[in-house]
Amino acid sequence: MTGDANAPVCVLGTGLIGGSLLRAARAAGYPAFGYNRSSAGVLAARGDGFDVADDLPAVLRRAAREDALIVVAVPMPAVDHLLADIATFAPECVLTDVVSVKGPVAEAVARHGLSARYVGGHPMAGTAESGWAATDPELFRGAVWAVGVDEGTRAEPWRRVVRLALACGSTVVPVTAAEHDRAVARISHLPHVLAEALAVAGAAGGPLALGLAAGSFRDGTRVAGTAPDLVRAICEPNAAALLDVLEETLTVLGAARDSLRADGTLGELVDAGHDGHTDYRTVRRWEITDVRPGEHDWLARLREAGLRGGVLTALD
Amino acid sequence: MTGDANAPVCVLGTGLIGGSLLRAARAAGYPAFGYNRSSAGVLAARGDGFDVADDLPAVLRRAAREDALIVVAVPMPAVDHLLADIATFAPECVLTDVVSVKGPVAEAVARHGLSARYVGGHPMAGTAESGWAATDPELFRGAVWAVGVDEGTRAEPWRRVVRLALACGSTVVPVTAAEHDRAVARISHLPHVLAEALAVAGAAGGPLALGLAAGSFRDGTRVAGTAPDLVRAICEPNAAALLDVLEETLTVLGAARDSLRADGTLGELVDAGHDGHTDYRTVRRWEITDVRPGEHDWLARLREAGLRGGVLTALD
Repeated sequence: MTGDANAPVCVLGTGLIGGSLLRAARAAGYPAFGYNRSSAGVLAARGDGFDVADDLPAVLRRAAREDALIVVAVPMPAVDHLLADIATFAPECVLTDVVSVKGPVAEAVARHGLSARYVGGHPMAGTAESGWAATDPELFRGAVWAVGVDEGTRAEPWRRVVRLALACGSTVVPVTAAEHDRAVARISHLPHVLAEALAVAGAAGGPLALGLAAGSFRDGTRVAGTAPDLVRAICEPNAAALLDVLEETLTVLGAARDSLRADGTLGELVDAGHDGHTDYRTVRRWEITDVRPGEHDWLARLREAGLRGGVLTALD
Repeated sequence: MTGDANAPVCVLGTGLIGGSLLRAARAAGYPAFGYNRSSAGVLAARGDGFDVADDLPAVLRRAAREDALIVVAVPMPAVDHLLADIATFAPECVLTDVVSVKGPVAEAVARHGLSARYVGGHPMAGTAESGWAATDPELFRGAVWAVGVDEGTRAEPWRRVVRLALACGSTVVPVTAAEHDRAVARISHLPHVLAEALAVAGAAGGPLALGLAAGSFRDGTRVAGTAPDLVRAICEPNAAALLDVLEETLTVLGAARDSLRADGTLGELVDAGHDGHTDYRTVRRWEITDVRPGEHDWLARLREAGLRGGVLTALD
């Protein structure tokens, strides 16, 4: 499928994202194996014929032996523990992750001395479901997959991570950790916060309000059905960026409130929101074709292209 | 289909809701005709074989002659003009509406001296589309349809309105105008406001953020795709109730911001939001079977039942 489809992928954490990645990687021709902390998760994956174990040192020794690409696929609070063992048992492996924030992962990776072979990743896919039972080898098809282009990133590990993302059917968006985290605060973490607040407001109206609720409430609250621990694990590690955009949004909503109270109008908010929705509906992803990994300024050029909506759909 | 399926329905305004009602009423066996202000709308409806005209006095005279049930199906800003002509040409007809707020319509109806035969209505159905082209005779099937039980409502017109809602495939929620307006501020108008604010926040992140957006942003902003004039016509007439719940929500979001800043946690919001979403997912509609329209205290008893989630799925 890809140039290094014979080098294995080692997925640590076989929940919705990690388990789907294990399936997608194998479907794309990669030898793939994994680790899961819970024996129930291990049994579920094995029951479907996947090579998953709960002995982390053993899995990591195998990854080192086979020069596997290691993918950290656990929620942020569990990342540090995994990295400690990776530093012990597989410090030379190329390392990526699919965690929902990138700055805190990169900092943890640096603390464990693993930065040289690390390239952050974040596939923008998921459902309100979780666990092996929800995994789907097609989860990443047609999705975008953020891949890090921070200063110091090396070309060889970067290519391996990008190849895996492309092999899973995704389009790659090159982005630095800080810019990723600011962007996802806007389009992933703020949606969670607003959905929770909307669910609170609806439920305060009791059975009458909830019984009258139709499409706008259903869609607006959908992600409030996500398990609270998972929402916190996604949003809280990105507190700084989320605080900025939450503050912005409180200002926007406060101005709408003032305008509705003083003049009976929501015109300014509604026009701006409709314009924003139009931007979203019409945003064009364009293909970056003129940057070769490793050449002069490749990281800065990819970063700049990513900010303008550039993506990668193939590698050489 | 129903007891008075032979008495015609006269729909004023043949956009998404009114046009769909014209289709649904005819499909349920009602003779049905209508009025639309724009000749383009009239031609579109006629092209599909519907009896729609742009001469409002003539349509209303016919409604009076045929003892039609008149349905006002225009946005709030256009209601007053229609009521003036109804008071002139068809003051004795039973009158209902499908406008998204009930208090302001009831006040306008009272100003025109039409309260005696008026029963407010609001089918909780719609899409981001509008106009005749989007109409669908099945739009109301499986939806809930709020029907007014304000003091002074008379049993005979009430039964006619309820029969029409049931014939269109909806379940009827009995509710007073004030309680309706407070409820829809929570589950319909606040979702619009939050969707607009989310679209603004996402677009402020430029092509990078919008290009990374996935399911949570798509669902959270869906109704921001609605035409701005329509959103304003839906939300602004309910300013008082919307201001109350917007204020509540600003408080909830402000507390979440404070908690995230001070302690790095969104726990309180996320737990409350998840509980609210669970309430929504598990809200049970139960059937009201022990209230006969016109009997002692029927309006108060229906109102009380509606507040507790009671609905009507049949009439006698």
